[in-house]
Parts: sequence; structure tokens; C-alpha cells
Amino acid sequence: MAERAIAVDLGGTNLRVALVGRDGTIPSRQSVPTPGGGPDAVIERMVALIGEIAAGAGERALPVGVAIPGPLDPATGVVAYTPNLPGWRRFPLGETLRSHLGRPARLVNDGNSAAVGEARFGAAKGCRDLVYLALGTGVGGGIITGGRLIEGSTGLAGEVGHVTVALDGGRCTCGAVGCLETFAAGWAIKRDAGLVAATAEGRRLRELAGDGPVTPALVAVAALEGDPAATRLLARAGRALGAAMGVFVNLFNPTLIVVGGGIAGLGEPLLGPAAAAVADHCFPLARAAVRIERSALGDDTALLGAAALALDA
Amino acid sequence: MAERAIAVDLGGTNLRVALVGRDGTIPSRQSVPTPGGGPDAVIERMVALIGEIAAGAGERALPVGVAIPGPLDPATGVVAYTPNLPGWRRFPLGETLRSHLGRPARLVNDGNSAAVGEARFGAAKGCRDLVYLALGTGVGGGIITGGRLIEGSTGLAGEVGHVTVALDGGRCTCGAVGCLETFAAGWAIKRDAGLVAATAEGRRLRELAGDGPVTPALVAVAALEGDPAATRLLARAGRALGAAMGVFVNLFNPTLIVVGGGIAGLGEPLLGPAAAAVADHCFPLARAAVRIERSALGDDTALLGAAALALDA
Repeated sequence: MAERAIAVDLGGTNLRVALVGRDGTIPSRQSVPTPGGGPDAVIERMVALIGEIAAGAGERALPVGVAIPGPLDPATGVVAYTPNLPGWRRFPLGETLRSHLGRPARLVNDGNSAAVGEARFGAAKGCRDLVYLALGTGVGGGIITGGRLIEGSTGLAGEVGHVTVALDGGRCTCGAVGCLETFAAGWAIKRDAGLVAATAEGRRLRELAGDGPVTPALVAVAALEGDPAATRLLARAGRALGAAMGVFVNLFNPTLIVVGGGIAGLGEPLLGPAAAAVADHCFPLARAAVRIERSALGDDTALLGAAALALDA
Repeated sequence: MAERAIAVDLGGTNLRVALVGRDGTIPSRQSVPTPGGGPDAVIERMVALIGEIAAGAGERALPVGVAIPGPLDPATGVVAYTPNLPGWRRFPLGETLRSHLGRPARLVNDGNSAAVGEARFGAAKGCRDLVYLALGTGVGGGIITGGRLIEGSTGLAGEVGHVTVALDGGRCTCGAVGCLETFAAGWAIKRDAGLVAATAEGRRLRELAGDGPVTPALVAVAALEGDPAATRLLARAGRALGAAMGVFVNLFNPTLIVVGGGIAGLGEPLLGPAAAAVADHCFPLARAAVRIERSALGDDTALLGAAALALDA
């Protein structure tokens, strides 16, 4: 049984490769801007970095886990598409990596990978039933139940940002209607903030933004100062987040919901109303069994999850 | 490995006990009205029937599975409460049965049990990723992912009728807000039908009901005749059902959603709009992987699931 794995986190901005120990330590790592120009350039660089890390570790055949920013089928290794990377539609990444590496790699969606990272090394260490929510520009995450990652029949499960909380809500980036993401994603909060800032009660938001956009972080600053419009704006997003958490509590009866990503950093003005709203959307007994916590792993969550899955494979 | 099990389905109306083969056949069964007066009377009768069935089978130590109409913790055997049976709050059924039977029984919530029954013997036979929805007076069901029943950290998972689909919706029997059940349960459709029947466009519903209540079945009859009010009423319930199915598709990426229970019998006026609405509430790729089917097991779904779980234990 391998004691170390090589983990890859392929992001829209950076390609990161690391040596990860079974205990979650990261003895070495490399990070480069994700090469443009489609899968071939990315894979060439990825394979080179894996080779460098393996050489440094003095072991050629370490297990490899790769976190991908989009849906993929772990059984076939085919990436369905990657919203933030061009050219990856129906791309046979599993086959391609196997031919380059001479052995299979464990592929996983990055939200799912992050859930595994949290369960193995993070806020949810040792936890067998948890939901991980990554609140960023979009809303991603993953679900672990009975100690196992939910991947679904074709690897598309765990889309926790795309649960309908408003039957007649707004249109989402995914094409569907009323998703959690349409309330609590960075893009949704920014859109709402721009609209509110343009009104009579948007004075403080306009002052804070100056010539720039009204970012979610600025809305949180205004809310913490007591600005009523900013407070209401984040409370509405928080209520939707709480409703979704209630859905997860009733479906999974988890011991932990872990909230990560930049938007979780908005803190109390968002997460307070979310925590309060949960009670209106789930059974009291199941709610009594769950805690809601902030992620403690930062940017390494998906990387660590990919390593854990590679070590388990 | 046992080839047969004794399954118990404790319902609010009937207590049913059956001998079930590994292939889903039911060589013998008994059904009696559920005794009133609390757990002791029920358990006495249940144990007696288990004994009769075991004697008839010529085997004393067959595994026993019991489906319970309420949440329970399979690890501790404690029934949290049973909405339709008095006196079962925090009742240690596992311990009590063990002392009567001389061996442990596998306890399971009846919605979860029905999901297992469908996966093992029903519409979803052989399916590893499915959601079962029991549309009755309330909405129950269960979830199987990767071949395993989701029970959660304290046995409360799988409450598929109590997912919020309307952030600001109506109050549910569970105390929460905007659950699927507030739209698509028998009680909700009946309540809505009563309100609509009292209006100017409720003439046909009033005619069909005569001196009785406007039941969901009568609404379906009116809708199939083309009555506009009845059609819209069931279409609205169907849209909420479709939104919830979309949520399940995005979270579980199942190959099958099985719909059972009396309300599923309303047919096309409810299930047509539901199937159409799914597309507005999930990713196209995940939707392409799922079929929606009616249950074929009828009343035996939970009984068969309890047997399957007992045989697996």
C-alpha cells in the first residue's frame, strides 16, 4: 500500500501538482499558470510536473489523483466539459493520462475531491457523513455518506450548488431555474449588489466601490458597518443557503456541513442568516445531529482529496 | 447464508408479516389490523406472528427485518417517533425485539425499506443508483447510491418528501417550509382541491364529489375530462414534483427515479407536468442518464426491502 501519492489540481487559473503523504502532509509542490490552448498543452505540462515530483520523491510509480474543474465519468475517464477551460468537451483524459504515465490515474470532479479532502484531513476529519459547499464565483462541493463519496451512475452527482430552492426563481449559469447558486454564488451577490448600489439606498455601497465594481467583499464590509441595504442583500442570499443546507440535512443526515470558498469569507452577514434559516427547512432531530463549520484547508482541499482517492484506489 | 427471511411491515393501519425468499417470492404471509394501545400490544402481536411464520417455514432462526413508519436509528434500534402510531416516542424497539426473539432484527424506516425493495425486486431491479418516491397522504421514500442505502449519521436520511422547493412556500406537516410535500402530497392536493372546488370554476369538482370530499382521485378524473381548474391544480403539484426530481438528479445522478403510492396513480395529469419540469431543474447530461418509472411492487415494496436488508445483514 502506497504511503504517498501525487495529486493534481487542474484549475482554470493554476495547474498544481503535489506530493502528498497519507497523513496529509505536502513535502513538495509545484504550481504554474494553467497553459492555454486546450487539453494537449495542459496534459503535456501536467505529465512533466508529475514526472518532476516523482523524480524528487525517488519513486516512479506513485498513485496519481487528478481533480478536474468539471463533470467527468470516473468509470470511463471521459471529461464531459469544463466550464472554465476551453476545448475539454468529451475529452478522454483517463485514456490519455494512462498512455502518458503508463498507469491509470484516479480522476475526480474538484468539488467532490474537496469533500474527500475535508473528510480526510480538514474540518470533517474522520467524519463519515458530510456535505462540503464551496461558495466561490459559482457554488460547488460534494457529498460523503457512510464514509463514501457520492459520484452517481455517470460521475455527475454531488452538484450541491444546483439544488432548486425556488421553484419560480431566476435562471442559473447551468441553464436551470432557482438553483442555490442563483442566490449565493459570487456572481449572484455581485449582480444583486450592482442593482442595489444604483438605488437611493445604495449610497454606502457606491462610496466603498469608488470607480470599481461592487464586489461581494464590499457588500460584507457595508453590512458589518450596519448598512441596511447590504445587510438585507446578504441575508437573502443566506436564507437561500440555509434552505439548501436544510435540504442536505433531510436527505443525508450528516454530522457536518463544511462551508469553504471565498464567499464563505463574507462571514456573519451571510452565514448568520443561513444558520438561522436551516431550522425552517429540515427535521429538528436531524438538525440536532449536524454542525455547520468553515473550511480550514484553504486552497489545498481538492488537492488533498485527489491524493486520498488515489491512495484508496 | 440464509435463503429466506421474515419481513415485518408495521403500518398505521395494518401489521404485516411475511416469509420472503432471496428471490423475492413470498411463500406465506399474514396481515392483521395494527393493534391499538401503544408499542407493547403491537410488539406482542408482531412477535407472535413472527413465531407462526417461522414455525410454518420449519426454521426457528431466520433473519428478521422490520420496516417502521417513522424515523429510527438503525445503530441503536431506537425509534424516534411514529407520526401515525401513538406511544412510540424514543422507543427502544431493537432491544425489545432482541429480548423477545433471542436475536437482533434489522430495523429500517419504511420509506428507505421500500427503496431497497424497488432496487432488489422491483422497477429498479439491479439498479445501483435510484431514488424512490412514495406519493401517498404524505411523501416518503429513500435513496440508494452506489448500491447502498443512504441512512445518514443517525438513521434520519432519505427524507425525499421534505426537500424545500419553495424558499417562501407553505408550512409542511413536518413543521418546515416549502417542502415538496406541501405541493404533491395527498393532503396538499386534497386541501387545494377543496379550495378550488368552492370557486366559480370548481363546478365539475363539486359535481364529482357530491356530498363527499374532493379527493385527489376525483381531481384526476376531472383533469382527464379536460376540466381546466383540475388540470392546473395537478400541473402545479407536478411542477413541484419535477423540481424535486431535478434536485435528486443533480445530487445523485441516478439511473432511475421510481414513483409509487396512491398519488402516483393520478397518472398523466400529475406525472406529465412533473416529467416536463425536470428539465428546468437539473443538468442536461445527468437528466439524459435517468428514467422515471412507476412502481410495480404495490403494497409489498417495504416488506420486500426489509427482507432484503435482513438477508444482507
